[in-house]
Amino acid sequence: MRDSNREWYFVERPEGEPTLDSFELRERERPTPRFGELLVRVRYLSVDPYMRGRMRAGESYAEPWAVGDVLRGGIVGEVVESESDRFETGDLVTGHGTWSEYSVLDADDAAPVDPSVADLPAYLGVLGMPGRTAYFGLLDVAEPRPGDTVVVSGAAGAVGSTVGQIAALNGCRVVGFAGTDEKTTWLTDSLGFDAAINYATTDDYRAALDDAAPGGVDVYFDNVGGPITDAVFTKLNVDARVAVCGQIAHYNDEGVPTGPRKLPALIASRARVQGLLVGDYATRFGAAREQLETWVASGAVDHRETVVEGLENAPDAFLGLFAGDNVGKQVVRVSE
Amino acid sequence: MRDSNREWYFVERPEGEPTLDSFELRERERPTPRFGELLVRVRYLSVDPYMRGRMRAGESYAEPWAVGDVLRGGIVGEVVESESDRFETGDLVTGHGTWSEYSVLDADDAAPVDPSVADLPAYLGVLGMPGRTAYFGLLDVAEPRPGDTVVVSGAAGAVGSTVGQIAALNGCRVVGFAGTDEKTTWLTDSLGFDAAINYATTDDYRAALDDAAPGGVDVYFDNVGGPITDAVFTKLNVDARVAVCGQIAHYNDEGVPTGPRKLPALIASRARVQGLLVGDYATRFGAAREQLETWVASGAVDHRETVVEGLENAPDAFLGLFAGDNVGKQVVRVSE
Repeated sequence: MRDSNREWYFVERPEGEPTLDSFELRERERPTPRFGELLVRVRYLSVDPYMRGRMRAGESYAEPWAVGDVLRGGIVGEVVESESDRFETGDLVTGHGTWSEYSVLDADDAAPVDPSVADLPAYLGVLGMPGRTAYFGLLDVAEPRPGDTVVVSGAAGAVGSTVGQIAALNGCRVVGFAGTDEKTTWLTDSLGFDAAINYATTDDYRAALDDAAPGGVDVYFDNVGGPITDAVFTKLNVDARVAVCGQIAHYNDEGVPTGPRKLPALIASRARVQGLLVGDYATRFGAAREQLETWVASGAVDHRETVVEGLENAPDAFLGLFAGDNVGKQVVRVSE
Repeated sequence: MRDSNREWYFVERPEGEPTLDSFELRERERPTPRFGELLVRVRYLSVDPYMRGRMRAGESYAEPWAVGDVLRGGIVGEVVESESDRFETGDLVTGHGTWSEYSVLDADDAAPVDPSVADLPAYLGVLGMPGRTAYFGLLDVAEPRPGDTVVVSGAAGAVGSTVGQIAALNGCRVVGFAGTDEKTTWLTDSLGFDAAINYATTDDYRAALDDAAPGGVDVYFDNVGGPITDAVFTKLNVDARVAVCGQIAHYNDEGVPTGPRKLPALIASRARVQGLLVGDYATRFGAAREQLETWVASGAVDHRETVVEGLENAPDAFLGLFAGDNVGKQVVRVSE
C-alpha cells in the first residue's frame, strides 16, 4: 500500500450558515497519477466564498458538490510525481485540486508558479482566480473610465482589493467597503483607495457615500449584496455600470431574499447591471496573468494573504470567510 | 382678445394612485406663436405612463412638473398659424405640446405627419415616441438574436406590442404578458406572438413561463415590474439581456417597493440588465421613423390605438393606463 493521504470530504449539505458538520477528514491512500497527470504535495489550498454555492443541491453558478465528494479548490504545491512532459518533480505548480495533503492535477490544467514574483499564497489570490476575476470583472464588465468613481464592496477581500487597485491605476476615484478598521486602514494607507467605509461601525451607508463619493457612483463592483448594495444603488450616476461578482451576504440565505427593488431606479440612470463568472474569460487568462504578475512584481498592485495553519483547519478557514476573518486572500497552509 | 383655449393644468401632486384631483381644466386665451413657432389645432393628444414620474417632486427619469404647470405631452394636429418656413397652415404635424385645444410647437421640434402611412393617432404610438422606444430599447439595449426567446411585459401596450413584432421580424420566439383575454388574443392572432399569458387570470407566472418559454428567456423587455418581472428573472438564460423600459406596477408606490432580490441570480446567468430612455437615441430618430413607417405601411408591424373622446376626458384616459384600459396606444381625440 502507498502512503496515506488526509483528505476533506463534503458529508452534509448545510442549511443557512454552514458548520463543521458538513466536513469530515478522512485518511485515504495517496493517489497515483495517471498519464498526463501530476501528483502534487499541497503547500497551500484556497477557500473561497463561491464554494458555498457548490454546497447547494439546487442551481448555483458553480456545479453542485455531491454529498460524499472530496472537497475541491485551488491549490499550490510541489510536483512529487510527474506523468507529463510539462512538469518535473520539484516544480512548483498551481491548479484546481483537492483539500488534502496530496492532490492529483491534470498537467494541462496546471500552471507554473514563480516564487521570485510573489510568495506561493499569492498564486491563490492576486495571481490566481481572484485576481483574474478582479481583472476581467472590472475591465471587461464594469469598463471604468478615467475620472470615474468606483465603489467596491468586500474591498479588503482577495477580489475587492485587486479591483480597487486596478481601478486606481486606471485613473479612477476608488471607495471601498470593508468590515474592520484594520481593513479600511489597509485600503486607504497601503492600497491607494481614496476612501474606505467600515460597514460594521457605520449606520447610514447612504450618508457615508454622500461623503466618500460626492459625485455619485459610476462603477460599482459588488462582492457582497445586502444593505451596502442597496445604498450604492441609490447613488448610481447616469450610465453607471455594476459588475455583480459575488453576493456573500446572501449565500447562506434559505429561500429567495427580499430587499428594495432596484429596477425602477435603473430607468433614470440607464445603469447597466451584469453578472460575471471568470471562467468565461478562460481564453485570455494568460494575458491577465502576465499583466497581474507585472503589476505585482513592480509593486503597482499590492496584496495580502491571511494564512490559516494546518489542513485540519481548512473548514474553519472556509467558515471564517462569512465572518470576514480574512484580510486579503484566505488560504490554508498544508505543508512547508 | 383672441379666441379662447381650454387647457389642462397640474394642480396637485398625487400620493399613490393619482385621481382627478390632480387636474384642472381652465379656459385661457389662445396663445400667439412667436417667430419659429406654430399654432396647432390639436386633433389627438397622448397620455403615457411615464407622465406619472413627472408628477413626483423627487427624482424621476422625467423632469418633474411644477404644480400649476399646464400638462404637456405628445400631440398631433393641424397648423393653423405658422411663423416658420418649415410648415404651412393646413399641414399636419406632431410634437411635444400641451393638453389643450390649441398648442404652440417650436417648428424645429415638430415633425410632419403623413396620413397615407397611418391614421393620425398612430403618430403618437407606433410612429411616435412609444414606437421609437420599442425600436431602440429592443434593438440597441436588448440585442435580440435569431432564435432567442423574447418575453415582453405590458405586451399589449403601445411599446410592448411594437417590441414583440420587431422581435418576431428578427426571428425570435415572442411571449407576451397582458391583462385581458382580448389583449392576449390580439397578440397571438394578429401580431404574431408565439404565446401570450393573461396575468390577471394566471396564478403561477413561473409555471406559465415553463410552458410558454420552455427553453428559458434570452431577452426580457420590461414595461411593468412587480410579480411578472420576478417570475421572468427566475427563467433567464445564460447571457440573457433585460431592457428596463418601464415599471408601471411601481409608479404609484410611495417609498421604495421591495421584492425578491435579483442580483444573486445574475451571477449564474451573467445576465445584463439595463435601463433605457428613448431620448438618448435622438440623433437616430429619423432612421427609426423611416424603418417604422416602412414596416407599418407594408403591414409588417400592426398597431392599435384606444381613443378616448374629448379633451375633457384626458385625465380619465391617463388614469386608465394604470387600470390597463388601453389596447395599444391610449390617445385622446380633442377635435376632428
